[in-house]
Amino acid sequence: MKRLKNLTPFIVMDIVKEASKFNDTIHFEIGQPDISPSPKVIEAAQTAIKNKNFSYTQTEGLEILREKIALHYKKVYDVKINPENILITPGTSGAFLLAYSLLLDINERIGFADPGYPSYKNFAYMLGIEPVFINVDKDSNYCITKDILKKYKIDALQISNPSNPTGNIYEDNSLKDLCRYCELNGINLISDELYHGLVYDKNVQTALKYNKNAIIINGFSKYFCMPGFRIGWIIVPDNLKRKAVMLAQNIFISAPTISQYAAVEAFDYEYLKFVNETFKKRRDFLYNELKNIFTINKFPDGAFYIWADISKYSNNSFEFSKFLLEKIHVAVTPGTDFGKNETKKYIRFSYTRDLKHLEEGVKRLTSLLC
Amino acid sequence: MKRLKNLTPFIVMDIVKEASKFNDTIHFEIGQPDISPSPKVIEAAQTAIKNKNFSYTQTEGLEILREKIALHYKKVYDVKINPENILITPGTSGAFLLAYSLLLDINERIGFADPGYPSYKNFAYMLGIEPVFINVDKDSNYCITKDILKKYKIDALQISNPSNPTGNIYEDNSLKDLCRYCELNGINLISDELYHGLVYDKNVQTALKYNKNAIIINGFSKYFCMPGFRIGWIIVPDNLKRKAVMLAQNIFISAPTISQYAAVEAFDYEYLKFVNETFKKRRDFLYNELKNIFTINKFPDGAFYIWADISKYSNNSFEFSKFLLEKIHVAVTPGTDFGKNETKKYIRFSYTRDLKHLEEGVKRLTSLLC
Repeated sequence: MKRLKNLTPFIVMDIVKEASKFNDTIHFEIGQPDISPSPKVIEAAQTAIKNKNFSYTQTEGLEILREKIALHYKKVYDVKINPENILITPGTSGAFLLAYSLLLDINERIGFADPGYPSYKNFAYMLGIEPVFINVDKDSNYCITKDILKKYKIDALQISNPSNPTGNIYEDNSLKDLCRYCELNGINLISDELYHGLVYDKNVQTALKYNKNAIIINGFSKYFCMPGFRIGWIIVPDNLKRKAVMLAQNIFISAPTISQYAAVEAFDYEYLKFVNETFKKRRDFLYNELKNIFTINKFPDGAFYIWADISKYSNNSFEFSKFLLEKIHVAVTPGTDFGKNETKKYIRFSYTRDLKHLEEGVKRLTSLLC
Repeated sequence: MKRLKNLTPFIVMDIVKEASKFNDTIHFEIGQPDISPSPKVIEAAQTAIKNKNFSYTQTEGLEILREKIALHYKKVYDVKINPENILITPGTSGAFLLAYSLLLDINERIGFADPGYPSYKNFAYMLGIEPVFINVDKDSNYCITKDILKKYKIDALQISNPSNPTGNIYEDNSLKDLCRYCELNGINLISDELYHGLVYDKNVQTALKYNKNAIIINGFSKYFCMPGFRIGWIIVPDNLKRKAVMLAQNIFISAPTISQYAAVEAFDYEYLKFVNETFKKRRDFLYNELKNIFTINKFPDGAFYIWADISKYSNNSFEFSKFLLEKIHVAVTPGTDFGKNETKKYIRFSYTRDLKHLEEGVKRLTSLLC
């Protein structure tokens, strides 16, 4: 069957399964925060239950939530967004389904960075869209640049800023250049900004600042620490609004109601500062340690991942990951989960556990490898 | 754009919007229960929040929930299901995405009843699958029969049992015949059983009883009164299990966590009996009244809908629906939302409000039309 023949599993799942056999595993493989959401979020979820808010909402999502998101863009990016261009989705997953379906016909082509988040291409396969893998490396700071893009013929481009698994960001000028290039060349731009807020020393802009027609995807699973609530959002330009709502009505009716009420309280900036600072401390610690054990080609500016070159130990990241797990009960994600571009030489570390946990992991790695 | 050019909006949304302007609207258009879920469900949701169950679950869903679902099949249908063949999905919406993607390649053909639930075909359009509309009417009790099916060339068949909007069920023999016909003719069968439990005088079987390879879709939004929780399930045969999990990992990670914990307590059979009896009383009342005002071609055995022939008043169900709303503030769903097969002659009544509300609606209809 053509649709699914290229679908890739999450190889890390084999690691996760193995890891669950030990009760002292160090978890560098987990892609979700260990921190709870703001107490205000938790209270709002409880209140939603007390108020028996158990019905579907309107497909676009609660108006108050869309207004809060619009205010967030004004506050953080100084970008004005009409809440009517925002749809609340079941996780960013729902947003990707909408974005790809709205922009790309069967057999059209969408570009992704390799290495990159593996599900992008699998959404494309499911929808009969052709994924085009754009190799990126340290030379461009793992970003897709205008010059790299010139070599590819695509109908849409998906970027992630900050990126998973490489932790790079698109700095202002490169983002501006890329946005303009896409606009001038009729390439529809989708910007996955799920890790916004988890950038530690620099500023990162939304692609909407430089490309009014970009589709923006974001959600509450990472920075807002609400993964299990399964709630995200998409911002679409005016010309796609009606189709987006029609499609969403059909393919998911509405996002989970309790989660929507909870998310209304997620813009608790004091708490979010604590979240950011917590991950920054972990990033600083883990980067400083791992760079003595592996080769880190790029200082990780954002998200909660470090992309480590293991080639001085192995050229098979899956075998190396299994080796780490068996020998020292340290779980990491093999680079091969993220594409084919030199990914056998890399593993991904997440810093989604507390400093003590990270320290123990580093201790074990050091005694095994150094 | 080919993918979305045939996408249909929910025409009823125009009615819903208009209806919100009046504060005395009678709601016969709503497709979700007004009844809260079991108090045990509400308590479980609260406990999940207290326990900070905010992470993703495994993609397949909580094991305890899948075990409860398997027990439900044993108890209600005497059908043995391995919990490993069950995946918890974000609403039945997630289940349809999986089912169609797993069974049908681009340009393959799937059959649906016309009239039928409008989103089925829109999932197909989104996925590049060709919908084949199978006209059904009172002659076959709005069921797709073996004899009707012989005239069509399709790769998969989607049935809904009970059906929306017609409220018919597939009785045992017709279900058995259809299941066997599909099995013998290499037609993949998908059975939407979301309204199981909302059948009032007869028994209805799961298609799994007669076709071990059928894909079953069900969820917690109707009988279990949990629409806003956005949680459903799919049962897949062994040969599709691995692909189903891989796809689900990519396209929705996992279903909402609080909702999953809540659903564990949904199999509260005493409460469910109350739900069934409540809807039965409403069905009995509304059917007995409406049959004096409209032509009802088929006694509605299940779901919470009545499909009413309006042709003695109008041959344009949308205009007639607008007329009812403007004149007497009664909201109904125009038949045209459900297909093209004589649907201009029909409107759909939901009995998702209490008897007093239904009585007021009937009073207004009677004084306008009789």
